Amino acid sequence: MDIAALRKAHPEHWMRAAAIRTLTLDAVAAANSGHSGMPMGMADVATVLYEKHLKFDASAPDWPDRDRFILSAGHGSMLIYSLLHLTGYSDMTLEQVKNFRQLGAITAGHPEYGHAKGIETTTGPLGQGIANAVGFALAEENQRARFGKKLVDHYTYCIAGDGCLMEGVSQEAIGIAGRHELGHLIVLWDNNNITIDGTVELSDRTDQVQRFKASGWHVQEIDGHDPEQIDAAIEKAKKTKKPSMIACKTHIALGSSAQDTSKGHGALTSADLIRDTKEAYGWSYGPFEIPDDVKSQWEAIGKRGASERQAWEARLLEVSGSKQKEFARCYAGDVPKKLSATIKALKKQISESQPKVATRKASEMALEVINPIMGETFGGSADLTGSNNTLTSDMGVFGPDNRKGRYMYYGIREHGMAAAMNGMALHGGTKAYGGTFMCFTDYARGAIRLSALMGVPVTYVMTHDSIGLGEDGPTHQPVEHLAMLRATPNLNVIRPADAVETAEAWELALASKSTPTVMALSRQNLPTVRTDHTLKNQTSMGAYVLAEAESKRQAILMATGSEVEIALAARDLLEAEGIGTRVVSMPCWELFDQQDESYRRKILPAGPVRVAVEAAVGFGWDRWLFGERGKRDKGGFVGMEGFGASAPAETLYEHFGITAQAVADKVKSLL
Amino acid sequence: MDIAALRKAHPEHWMRAAAIRTLTLDAVAAANSGHSGMPMGMADVATVLYEKHLKFDASAPDWPDRDRFILSAGHGSMLIYSLLHLTGYSDMTLEQVKNFRQLGAITAGHPEYGHAKGIETTTGPLGQGIANAVGFALAEENQRARFGKKLVDHYTYCIAGDGCLMEGVSQEAIGIAGRHELGHLIVLWDNNNITIDGTVELSDRTDQVQRFKASGWHVQEIDGHDPEQIDAAIEKAKKTKKPSMIACKTHIALGSSAQDTSKGHGALTSADLIRDTKEAYGWSYGPFEIPDDVKSQWEAIGKRGASERQAWEARLLEVSGSKQKEFARCYAGDVPKKLSATIKALKKQISESQPKVATRKASEMALEVINPIMGETFGGSADLTGSNNTLTSDMGVFGPDNRKGRYMYYGIREHGMAAAMNGMALHGGTKAYGGTFMCFTDYARGAIRLSALMGVPVTYVMTHDSIGLGEDGPTHQPVEHLAMLRATPNLNVIRPADAVETAEAWELALASKSTPTVMALSRQNLPTVRTDHTLKNQTSMGAYVLAEAESKRQAILMATGSEVEIALAARDLLEAEGIGTRVVSMPCWELFDQQDESYRRKILPAGPVRVAVEAAVGFGWDRWLFGERGKRDKGGFVGMEGFGASAPAETLYEHFGITAQAVADKVKSLL
Repeated sequence: MDIAALRKAHPEHWMRAAAIRTLTLDAVAAANSGHSGMPMGMADVATVLYEKHLKFDASAPDWPDRDRFILSAGHGSMLIYSLLHLTGYSDMTLEQVKNFRQLGAITAGHPEYGHAKGIETTTGPLGQGIANAVGFALAEENQRARFGKKLVDHYTYCIAGDGCLMEGVSQEAIGIAGRHELGHLIVLWDNNNITIDGTVELSDRTDQVQRFKASGWHVQEIDGHDPEQIDAAIEKAKKTKKPSMIACKTHIALGSSAQDTSKGHGALTSADLIRDTKEAYGWSYGPFEIPDDVKSQWEAIGKRGASERQAWEARLLEVSGSKQKEFARCYAGDVPKKLSATIKALKKQISESQPKVATRKASEMALEVINPIMGETFGGSADLTGSNNTLTSDMGVFGPDNRKGRYMYYGIREHGMAAAMNGMALHGGTKAYGGTFMCFTDYARGAIRLSALMGVPVTYVMTHDSIGLGEDGPTHQPVEHLAMLRATPNLNVIRPADAVETAEAWELALASKSTPTVMALSRQNLPTVRTDHTLKNQTSMGAYVLAEAESKRQAILMATGSEVEIALAARDLLEAEGIGTRVVSMPCWELFDQQDESYRRKILPAGPVRVAVEAAVGFGWDRWLFGERGKRDKGGFVGMEGFGASAPAETLYEHFGITAQAVADKVKSLL
Repeated sequence: MDIAALRKAHPEHWMRAAAIRTLTLDAVAAANSGHSGMPMGMADVATVLYEKHLKFDASAPDWPDRDRFILSAGHGSMLIYSLLHLTGYSDMTLEQVKNFRQLGAITAGHPEYGHAKGIETTTGPLGQGIANAVGFALAEENQRARFGKKLVDHYTYCIAGDGCLMEGVSQEAIGIAGRHELGHLIVLWDNNNITIDGTVELSDRTDQVQRFKASGWHVQEIDGHDPEQIDAAIEKAKKTKKPSMIACKTHIALGSSAQDTSKGHGALTSADLIRDTKEAYGWSYGPFEIPDDVKSQWEAIGKRGASERQAWEARLLEVSGSKQKEFARCYAGDVPKKLSATIKALKKQISESQPKVATRKASEMALEVINPIMGETFGGSADLTGSNNTLTSDMGVFGPDNRKGRYMYYGIREHGMAAAMNGMALHGGTKAYGGTFMCFTDYARGAIRLSALMGVPVTYVMTHDSIGLGEDGPTHQPVEHLAMLRATPNLNVIRPADAVETAEAWELALASKSTPTVMALSRQNLPTVRTDHTLKNQTSMGAYVLAEAESKRQAILMATGSEVEIALAARDLLEAEGIGTRVVSMPCWELFDQQDESYRRKILPAGPVRVAVEAAVGFGWDRWLFGERGKRDKGGFVGMEGFGASAPAETLYEHFGITAQAVADKVKSLL
C-alpha cells in the first residue's frame, strides 16, 4: 500500500483518519492488549461516514432520530472509542481512552452497551451486530410508519468483518433484511481478507457480493481507503430501496509492518512498529496527542448534526400532544397506565371461567388484550406462529407493503430473530417478543445471552416447554433448558402454571426495563389453578403459597408450570392420608430470589419435607430443596434424569414417573 | 399437479414411490400426529436415489463403505422409515412403522440415531443434518486419503428442506463444503416453497441457487417428480469435483387436497383426504398394505448393493493385516493400546518438571503425544488455532490439496464446526475435536446438545474458560456455561486443574464411546498441583482428595480448574491458623456422580464445613454443598454472581473476590 500516495491525495482526510489509527495504536500499547488492525483498516470508511453521512449530535447522544452506528466487528472497539472521543462525546474523555481495557473504564475490550453513549449495542461475539442492525432497521421502518417521517427517518450503519459474515447468524440477518427490503440499512463490510488463523481463503471462498445479491441486497464494491469512493457509495446506498452492502476493500493494520497479516489483527504493541507506522502516517505527535487542527475538525463533525437535531425537536413540538406523549412513553419503555387494569380484568375473567388451556394459548389470550393498547409491541415467530400463539388479531403483518404491521414471520431463524429483537429493543420505542419451541433456545442462545448482558427487556415466548410436547420426541423436548436459562445472570425465566400466571407473567415482562424474560409455556392444556381472583400479581413474588396444608403441615411441594397441577393432585393424595401438604407455585426463581429472606422463609419454612416436581432435569433445584435452610431437613426431586422420548404426552409423564403418585410416594419415603 | 400424467409416464417408479407416500399417510394417521407432506413430496427423489445410486446393502447396514443418507429435514421421518422398511432392513418391521411415534418404537417422531439401522444421524432440529453431512463428507475424504480408495470411496447424500437452508448453521456448512471442495457431498434440496407459517416468500426470497454457487457449489435445478431428471442430476453430481446441490422442485403433500399448502406440512389424518389421495395415486390397497410386486421391487433394491459390499469385503482382506487392524480399530472407536502408556509417561514428566502452563497449553502438550499415535484424530478450531492450541506439529492441514491433513481451519463457524464433528464421529473411523472460546459454546449449543443426545464421543476444546481470560471482557467471559453444560445429560464437562489432569482428561475423552466431552481450559498459566505422579487416572473418578488436612479436618474445599490453585492457597491460610482443611479437586462432576455412594462419601464426608470455589456462577453447586448429606452442615460458595468485566485477569479475581483469602474467610465465617 502506498501510504504516501494516500496521504497526498486527501491530506486533511488522511490526518483525521490517522487520528483514529494512532489513538488505536497508543491505547492498545497502553493496555498491552486489544486489536489494532481493524480500526487501522477501517479508519477511512469510518471517518467519511461520520464526517459526511452519519446523522448525529455528540452533545445529544440519545436523540431518538439519530442514525445508528453499529460496530459488529466489536474487537475493533478502539475504532468507536476513537470516534466518540474525537467527535466530543462528553463521557469519552481522553482519560477513558488511556484506560482502555482497564477495570471500571467505559472502554472495555469490546464495546459494551451502557458503558458509553454512542455505543448502540454490545458487540464482540461475531455476527451479533449485523443481526442487531437488522432489528434497528426494522424498528425504524415500523416507527416511521407509526409516528411519521417527521419524527422517525434515519439510517442504520453497520461495520461487519469477515468473521461476522462467516457466522451463520449473519445469513439469517441477511435473509430477513433482504426479504423485507430494509432500505435504511447499510452494511459496510471490512473486506480485508484476514482472520485470526490467516487469510480468509484458509476457511472460506464465498463470493460475498453474490451471496448478498442472492438475498436481495444492493451491493457495491469500493476501495475502502479512497474517501471519494466511500462517500459516493454511501450516498448511493442511502438512495436504494434495498438494504445495501458496501464491500470495502481494506488493508488490515494499514501502514504497519503487520499490514495484511493475521498478526495485524491482534495487539500491535512493539514500540518500533508504532514509531515506524506513525512515521509512515506523517504523524509526528506524542502518544494520545491529537494536533489542534485535527481535533477541531473532528469536533466540528461532532456538532454537524446539532441544527438537524434542533429542527427535529421543533418538529416534535409540532405534532399533537397525545402523539408526543405516546412517542415519549414508548421511548421511555413505560407501559401504558391502563395495562394494569387490563391484566387485572383478564385475570378476573380467567379465575371465573377457569378455562383449561395450554399456557401458550393463555399467552395468546393475554396478548389479545395487550397488543391493542400497546402499539409499541412487535411480535413474531421463527416459523411456528400457530404453535407459539404469538400473532393476535390486530397486529398486521410487517412487510414492504405494510410497514405498520407489527408481526414478523421470521422464518426458520431463531438466532436471527433473537438478535433482531435485541436490536429493536436497543433502538428504543419498540417492545419486541418472539417465539419458538423452548428446545430451540439452543439456536438463539448467542443472542439470548446478550439480551441478559445488555439488560434489554425483550420477551422470548418459548412454547412446548417439556416432554409434554409429546410425539416430536427428544430433539424437541427441552430437559436442561430451564437450568441453562436460570443459570444465566439477569434473565427472568417465568414458567406459569395456568392462564392467570401467564397474564401476570406478561405484565412483568412488559414492565421490565433492564431484564429480558423467557416465558416457558406448555403445549398441553392445563387447568386454571388460580381460581381465587387476586388483584396482586402473585407471579411478581417469584413463588407463593398456592394451596395451604389442611392438616398439620408435614410437606411442602414446589412446582412450576405444567407440574403445578401434578403437585396439587399429589397434595390431595397426601391430605387424604392425613399428611398436611402445602403447594408452592414457583413460576420465577429469579424473582423469588429477589424477595427478602423473611418472605422466602415464609414460603419455604424450615421443618417440613420438601419435594420439587418439574418435567426437566433437577439441576439447580438443590438450592430450594436444601440450600436455603438452617436446619437439617430432607428433600427430593421428581423430574427427568435424561433426555425424553417420542410418545403421547400422558404416556411420557407415566413413563418418566412424573405423576402425583410418584410425588406423594417421594414425600412419604422422606417422612 | 397432474398426478395421472406422472403415473402414466413412469408407472413402476410411480408405484414404488407411492408405497412411501401411502405408508406415510397410514403411519401419520395411526399416530394421529407427524408430518405427511415432506415424504409425499420427496418420495420420487428418494426412490430414484435408493434405486439407482445409493450404495447400500440392507442386510449389512454397518458396512463402512456404504453411502450415507441423511434426512436433514427430519420431520419427514416417515420417508426414511418407509425406505428402511421397504428395502428390508431387518429391524424396521411393519410393526415398527405401525407404531410410529409410540413409546419404545424405533420410529420416533424424528429420526433418532441408534434407534434403527440406516439412521445415520439424529435430525429434527433444522439445519443440523446438512451440517452433519459436511462432517460425513470430510471424514470420507480424509479416510479415503488415509486408507485408500479401495476401502473408502462413497458419497454422502442429504435431503434438506427450506427450513434447513434458512437456519444459519447451513451457511456455515455450505461455506466449509465449498471451501474444501467436498465433491462426494450431494445435497438434494426439497424446493417445495412451503414452511409452517405459509409460503417461503413470507420470510425469505433468497435465490438458493445463487447462494450455493457463491460458495463454490455445483448446482442443478430439476423437477423433483421426474425420475429421469432426478437420475441424470444425481449422476452428474457424482461426477463433479465440487459439492453438489440439486434443487428439486417438488409439491409438498403431492396429490392430496393439502398439496402446496402449509397444512400439508403437518399431519394429514382425515380419512377422506387419505382415501381421495390414495385414489389419485391409483393405490387400491388397505392401510399399511404393500402389493407384492412393489414390495419385491423394493426388496431387490435393498439387495442391490450386496455384491459390491462383498467385493469390498474381499478388498479389505487384500490389504495388509496391520492396515486391516487399524481400520477395524478406528471404526470400533478403540484407542490404541499404547495410549495409556503414553499418557502415563506424559503425566510422569509433568509431575517431575512441574511446568506452570495454561491448561490450553497443557492440552496441546497432550495432543502432541496423542496425535502421532492416533491417526484417526481430526482437529480444528473456529479461527482460534493459536489460542485454543489445537494444532500439533504432525497433523497437516486438510484441504483440496491435502486430503491427508488432519487439521481444519473451520473459520468463524462454531456451530458448523460442532455439527461437522458430530458428522465425522457418526461416520466412524475418525475422532474429532474442535476448539473455540468457552463462551462461544453458545453458538455451537444446537450441535453440542445433539452430541450428547446421540452419544457421539466428540471433544470440545473450550479454552478461555472464565474471567481469567481478562481484558476481552464480559462478552468473552463464560460465567453460566459450566452450569449449562453440566445440566445437559450425557455430557462430560472436564475442567482440569493442571497439566496432569489435562492429560488425564484427554485420555478419558478419547476412550469415551458414547459420551461427548467438553474440556474447559484456562487461558492463564496454572501451577502443577499434581506433583506426585500416580499411575491411576484420578480425573476418571470425577473428584478426589488433592490435599489432606494436616490438623483435625474442619473444612473441605472443593474447586475445579484454575481455582484449585486458589483452594490450595486457602488451605495454607487455614492450616496456618490450625484449621485442618482438605482440598478436593473436582474436574468432572458427571464422573464423580457415577462413582458409588461410598466413594463419594469418602471424598465428601459429612461433618466439615464445605466451601466451593469456581470462577463461574454457583448454579448447581448446592448439590455438592448440601444435596448429598444426611446431616446438618454448612456450606458456602465463592465465585461469580453475574457477568464479568474487562480488565487484566488478576485484577478481576481480586475485584470479584475470588481469592484464597475470601475462601478462607468464608470457611471461618461458617465454622
